[in-house]
Amino acid sequence: MPGYPLSIRNLIREFSRFPGIGEKTAARLAAFVLRSPATDMMRLAEAILEVKEKIKICSVCFNLAERELCEICENESRDRGIICVVEDTDSLVAIEDSGGFNGTYHVLHGVLSPADGIGPEQLRLSDLVRRVSGGSVREVVVATNPSVQGETTALLIKRMLDHTGVVVTRIALGVPMGGDLKYIDRMTMAKAIEFRRGV
Amino acid sequence: MPGYPLSIRNLIREFSRFPGIGEKTAARLAAFVLRSPATDMMRLAEAILEVKEKIKICSVCFNLAERELCEICENESRDRGIICVVEDTDSLVAIEDSGGFNGTYHVLHGVLSPADGIGPEQLRLSDLVRRVSGGSVREVVVATNPSVQGETTALLIKRMLDHTGVVVTRIALGVPMGGDLKYIDRMTMAKAIEFRRGV
Repeated sequence: MPGYPLSIRNLIREFSRFPGIGEKTAARLAAFVLRSPATDMMRLAEAILEVKEKIKICSVCFNLAERELCEICENESRDRGIICVVEDTDSLVAIEDSGGFNGTYHVLHGVLSPADGIGPEQLRLSDLVRRVSGGSVREVVVATNPSVQGETTALLIKRMLDHTGVVVTRIALGVPMGGDLKYIDRMTMAKAIEFRRGV
Repeated sequence: MPGYPLSIRNLIREFSRFPGIGEKTAARLAAFVLRSPATDMMRLAEAILEVKEKIKICSVCFNLAERELCEICENESRDRGIICVVEDTDSLVAIEDSGGFNGTYHVLHGVLSPADGIGPEQLRLSDLVRRVSGGSVREVVVATNPSVQGETTALLIKRMLDHTGVVVTRIALGVPMGGDLKYIDRMTMAKAIEFRRGV
């Protein structure tokens, strides 16, 4: 991008490193930095550095945390008797966002994927077994994605927890709210029929 | 965005202030910050602050600059006898990017727009007249956008420079390279025919 002063070219280059941000978008972001108050941009710079300084992994559930425990594990009002197993923190955020769950989580940081060299040891599975073996857990809801790897991981979790006697459940598969039946893929439709419920 | 630790929510909020960045994209950018090396993110934070500290306006052409003069006005190999008048620095960058111009610039920082309260006094027009009156300028190319305001501004510049005897030109209007004639708007097509040239 000739024509811009050096410091703006530098900033455009830094913004371009972000995924999905091309040079044009980076230039638009840099232009916003240029016309924003300096105090706002200091707050942005500090917010970036703070994330790098503060974020660690919860020692219980492996969610993102700023202290030894994450906000959910610290929260006394969450039900510790039910653990929702997710692949990653994005899934956790989506479930929290739904407001439909008041238990705790266990973040695997991946799913079984032999092709990528990810076996049971690469996931937080033995930690899960240890948590459940403590005795106070009633149910484990496996909320891995509805993919081949997600289903395989769910089956493995079921098998690993068999000896504990805990109830292992799986999130429901079916037609999404607001979806139009004519655009639903056949696999989902077959599952929606298979798992039909009384009204 | 519940479920994220505070410092990540803060960063998502700061990123969301950027134009065209929604909450989902902001969360994606924050996730990139989270998984990037701390040194990379310090470089980004510094690049942001540096733009706020260093960028000023060139005292000759009103382009963005890090010193008293912008890089173009400082460059001895640029032809000071020809001045290209642009609405904003985005236009300047587009022209530099084309590689088709080796003169200097004059950035108006706007165009005439009585509806928005922008008259000749709000633009850098008297500065332009002063520059041209110096005597060493041969030609002023008006590269305002091909809009009603851009054309009006071009005509006003022509009138304001009449007494100086300098040649005032306008960038060519016509069919864009690679454009398909059947998709060209009628105004552009009419101009392309009006301004036809010998082959």
